[in-house]
Amino acid sequence: MTAPSRAWRWPALLAALACLCAFSTPGRADEEPLPSWRETPTRAAILDFVARVSDPASDDFVPMEARIAVFDNDGNLWAEQPVYFQLLFAVDRLRALAEAEPALRQQAPFSSILAEGPAALAALDEAALVKLVLATHTGLDSTTFNGLVADWAASATHPRFGQRYTDLTYAPMRELLDYLGNNGFTCYIVSGGGVAFMRAWAPAAYGIPPERIIGSRFQLTYRADDSGGTLQRLPELSHINDGPGKPVGIQQVIGRRPIFASGNSDGDLEMLTWTTSGEGPRFGLLLHHTDGEREWAYDRESHVGKLDEGLERAPALGWTVVDMARDWARVFAFEAPVETATGAVP
Amino acid sequence: MTAPSRAWRWPALLAALACLCAFSTPGRADEEPLPSWRETPTRAAILDFVARVSDPASDDFVPMEARIAVFDNDGNLWAEQPVYFQLLFAVDRLRALAEAEPALRQQAPFSSILAEGPAALAALDEAALVKLVLATHTGLDSTTFNGLVADWAASATHPRFGQRYTDLTYAPMRELLDYLGNNGFTCYIVSGGGVAFMRAWAPAAYGIPPERIIGSRFQLTYRADDSGGTLQRLPELSHINDGPGKPVGIQQVIGRRPIFASGNSDGDLEMLTWTTSGEGPRFGLLLHHTDGEREWAYDRESHVGKLDEGLERAPALGWTVVDMARDWARVFAFEAPVETATGAVP
Repeated sequence: MTAPSRAWRWPALLAALACLCAFSTPGRADEEPLPSWRETPTRAAILDFVARVSDPASDDFVPMEARIAVFDNDGNLWAEQPVYFQLLFAVDRLRALAEAEPALRQQAPFSSILAEGPAALAALDEAALVKLVLATHTGLDSTTFNGLVADWAASATHPRFGQRYTDLTYAPMRELLDYLGNNGFTCYIVSGGGVAFMRAWAPAAYGIPPERIIGSRFQLTYRADDSGGTLQRLPELSHINDGPGKPVGIQQVIGRRPIFASGNSDGDLEMLTWTTSGEGPRFGLLLHHTDGEREWAYDRESHVGKLDEGLERAPALGWTVVDMARDWARVFAFEAPVETATGAVP
Repeated sequence: MTAPSRAWRWPALLAALACLCAFSTPGRADEEPLPSWRETPTRAAILDFVARVSDPASDDFVPMEARIAVFDNDGNLWAEQPVYFQLLFAVDRLRALAEAEPALRQQAPFSSILAEGPAALAALDEAALVKLVLATHTGLDSTTFNGLVADWAASATHPRFGQRYTDLTYAPMRELLDYLGNNGFTCYIVSGGGVAFMRAWAPAAYGIPPERIIGSRFQLTYRADDSGGTLQRLPELSHINDGPGKPVGIQQVIGRRPIFASGNSDGDLEMLTWTTSGEGPRFGLLLHHTDGEREWAYDRESHVGKLDEGLERAPALGWTVVDMARDWARVFAFEAPVETATGAVP
């Protein structure tokens, strides 16, 4: 499978995007927190912020109910290369659909995807990708869709690592979710990926329950029947949770402004800006993919998870930038931790 | 103010609807639960259900994270007569807008509302009511709107009782929210009323945080500026959380099926049906307004909160019907409890 060769404009596709995760070790209150983070200024800044807002004697104390933290998912809690994992699910689902309905093999863009696999995605335009997502994500009920994604997450593996996608979650970020939770924060996932796709595996992977997952949504409709009704997934987007859609999704579901936001791409800028410009103590965390050895190195020119304006804005807005190669002792839970950086620090 | 003289078709108006609440006494684990409920079979059925699902030794045990309870608001957690309280807010807000913009006095339907007050609402058709709601609820940012509603809730009073609307919340239902919360349930409000309207007062009135309030929504848009941006309320409905919209709103926000649902009108039928037809132990609670003395008596013919099909369906679906006159020792927290029923039991 090759990396996509052209810039994909994700904001127009965002129901098609999302994500997976590992069995990392949850932190406990009595252990040294964030063991997969090296002892760099990044880790120190996180520990300092959490200590200040959770200490009732501190001027920066924030009552527990207002300690809301929001996390992007793709490229932030799990990997997103060579392409958003939700699209890889779409390809696998298309294959299963074509078994039952061979006529799909004659229709564009399904013909090329079925012939070439995910490598074909790079040649597709937006309309074709939307067609792929609608065909594989809608026209069925919520319960059935949930089961399909759960089965896929339990079995499909990543082309580079050969690991299940849920094992390509970032161990340091999983620790951060637990650490914040142990300190009275309520953590939400706020992703451009589809909310139903994420809810099928993210609760087990991250310890975040379904009601704290916010994402792009398809229109649902309730259809009454003799056994209590079903929720049907319609081929129409009702919310695109990317860029300016993230503060909107946060307001719709949470109804208050977070104090901590974590993202990795320019699609997270509005969420980070909205979060960190509120009154009182605020924390913005921007993950920079600098580790081509253990993971991938990409930013301003990337076709997936482009990070350009965010790197410009971070200093003025006081955001903390995570340098993956420098700051993380390990990336995935299946690696042994490395106490000093081995990757080149850009 | 007179009661509306014609049937209003609320489903088409639902951003215009909602609700308020009292300083009732929160229950404590060591006190006799539900003190405002008389010792009738209704109270016994609630206590029995909660005991069964929260006892790990019971066959009906439900893990805490799945103990989700959903409550309608208007006519279920607070009163809704002579008309949904959110419309009374709209009238008061229109008066304030007309002070600043006298030209509104010349435009229908604002002219009649400004001249006659809430009594004028009964003569308005749907289009006119929608115009009232859009004019008073949109075209401003979320923070400003929240402040306007909070100020109104702190000062406006009900025409019959002379109490603040938040004091017209039902003491027995406030106790039920606390009782369920004390037994490991997570309670949500799932109302046809506007979510932003409710979030301005319901957290203090019910002890339910903003992120557990689901309602009808206007479209929001994030507008960037030098101070972090604002969320603007646009004059367009993005979700109508009534009837079949309730299971949809529950799925969008919570992402799993509740085990306990409480409502009072035919607009709650889909929510109750969806909730009580899931697997395992389930509880449906239907509040019947039978108390014309302490509150109001209405059901099948009512212009507000019509309850007709629900009374038909309840026996077959095993829902527990609350007879307000019989089952509640008091309705509002400002009353003294009456241990035996004084109202006529229909």
